[in-house]
Amino acid sequence: MIDNCIEIRVRYADTDQMKVAYYSQYLIWFECGRTELLREIGYPYSRLEAEGIILPVIEAWCQYHKPARYDEVLTVRTTLPNLPRVKLRLDYQIFRSEPHEMLARGYTVHAFLNSEGRPVRPPKAFLEILKSYFETN
Amino acid sequence: MIDNCIEIRVRYADTDQMKVAYYSQYLIWFECGRTELLREIGYPYSRLEAEGIILPVIEAWCQYHKPARYDEVLTVRTTLPNLPRVKLRLDYQIFRSEPHEMLARGYTVHAFLNSEGRPVRPPKAFLEILKSYFETN
Amino acid sequence: MIDNCIEIRVRYADTDQMKVAYYSQYLIWFECGRTELLREIGYPYSRLEAEGIILPVIEAWCQYHKPARYDEVLTVRTTLPNLPRVKLRLDYQIFRSEPHEMLARGYTVHAFLNSEGRPVRPPKAFLEILKSYFETN
Amino acid sequence: MIDNCIEIRVRYADTDQMKVAYYSQYLIWFECGRTELLREIGYPYSRLEAEGIILPVIEAWCQYHKPARYDEVLTVRTTLPNLPRVKLRLDYQIFRSEPHEMLARGYTVHAFLNSEGRPVRPPKAFLEILKSYFETN
Repeated sequence: MIDNCIEIRVRYADTDQMKVAYYSQYLIWFECGRTELLREIGYPYSRLEAEGIILPVIEAWCQYHKPARYDEVLTVRTTLPNLPRVKLRLDYQIFRSEPHEMLARGYTVHAFLNSEGRPVRPPKAFLEILKSYFETN
Repeated sequence: MIDNCIEIRVRYADTDQMKVAYYSQYLIWFECGRTELLREIGYPYSRLEAEGIILPVIEAWCQYHKPARYDEVLTVRTTLPNLPRVKLRLDYQIFRSEPHEMLARGYTVHAFLNSEGRPVRPPKAFLEILKSYFETN
Repeated sequence: MIDNCIEIRVRYADTDQMKVAYYSQYLIWFECGRTELLREIGYPYSRLEAEGIILPVIEAWCQYHKPARYDEVLTVRTTLPNLPRVKLRLDYQIFRSEPHEMLARGYTVHAFLNSEGRPVRPPKAFLEILKSYFETN
Repeated sequence: MIDNCIEIRVRYADTDQMKVAYYSQYLIWFECGRTELLREIGYPYSRLEAEGIILPVIEAWCQYHKPARYDEVLTVRTTLPNLPRVKLRLDYQIFRSEPHEMLARGYTVHAFLNSEGRPVRPPKAFLEILKSYFETN
């Protein structure tokens, strides 16, 4: 298991007239989380794209427990539960920092596609980095 | 079962650098779909809010089969599969109009909350409208 | 002068906790307006991009007179005031339909760029279509 | 003059199919900038709203010099050029951090409104904080 935590702040633009963050915004925060997880392990998503591989989302799920409000600082915890084969799955938990409380959790599933849109195996170097993390953590 | 179809067009703002609609955008299209379903049965969402009831999303899921591209016309089909008790579930399918193809499907689950944020039963008049639809369809 | 009107409906996602449409949303509605103006004259923006020309925004301005609220139907009136040379300018007015009232007005300025990002002249066929409109309107 | 700099990172969600940040996104970054400027001087925007005052945008302008790309770190510099009377004006510059280059600049103008939507004077305590900054900077 590889995991990473980042902090984000709820913007006014994220809120809706219920005075809470709109539900699609969480999927954008998930993106922020997985971007930083990939950067932290040393294989930023931009490197994947530079190598001709994209990771489109093929499934997304989110459960909303408590609302996130304007100007709150949230922690997005992103977890890579297992080594990807043809698909990559990431899990997310979103916490309010003060008081500490889980607001939402979810997952995304991604396919590895080449520039023609065909499914491909994850790059070897990518898998090796992941393996080394799974062995040491 | 109650269902409703609307058409929406993919905006440039909806696309990302993969040249397809970004994944969180589908949840906004789901919102457009359920808004029109409620309007069509004669109980627009704004009436619920005027009566002091909000319907926040407590769960959302989407499976992405094919990408949606800039300027394509999409059909959002929204289905209310059964009478809500304490929660309301809506199902969605998103189709490209030309050539006709299903691009994504998903669901949202909503709670009925009053102005203090406490779960409440759906309004009687709302349930009665839904019942009359379920009986005739 | 070439002009075009479209209707859009304010989505829940567009609102913020002031219970009005968030200010950046108007720029997206401007995009919807100019997209339909180009389609109406027979030269959709996707044709420009297919010909290797992009029209990035290099300047945008908006003045907000009255708020737009959830579920309201708005009219976006887009005007092309004069023939483009190296830049294309479009003017916008956003009206609430019921009761009829101007909510906002603005403009965008666009450059014609080729695939290397260099400024180019507008395509001849594009200019000719515009000219024929200016002569007859 | 009061000024404040924050860093933000371009998200995938911010990009469009031109592979650059979509133009309305800059207005959201402006919001991030002014939020932090107000926090830094010790009068966060949430305090204004708690006191029954909102600061809706009544005018916005942005000039786009160079595109912002996915994953780039940007600096948003927000400047309050003078003491507000009935309106508050803020200026913005957006820089790419590496290599350092100005990407965009703009401004927003805000009205002070009370809960009924009527224009009011800025709160005294707010003006005094601003004055003390203008005197010492």
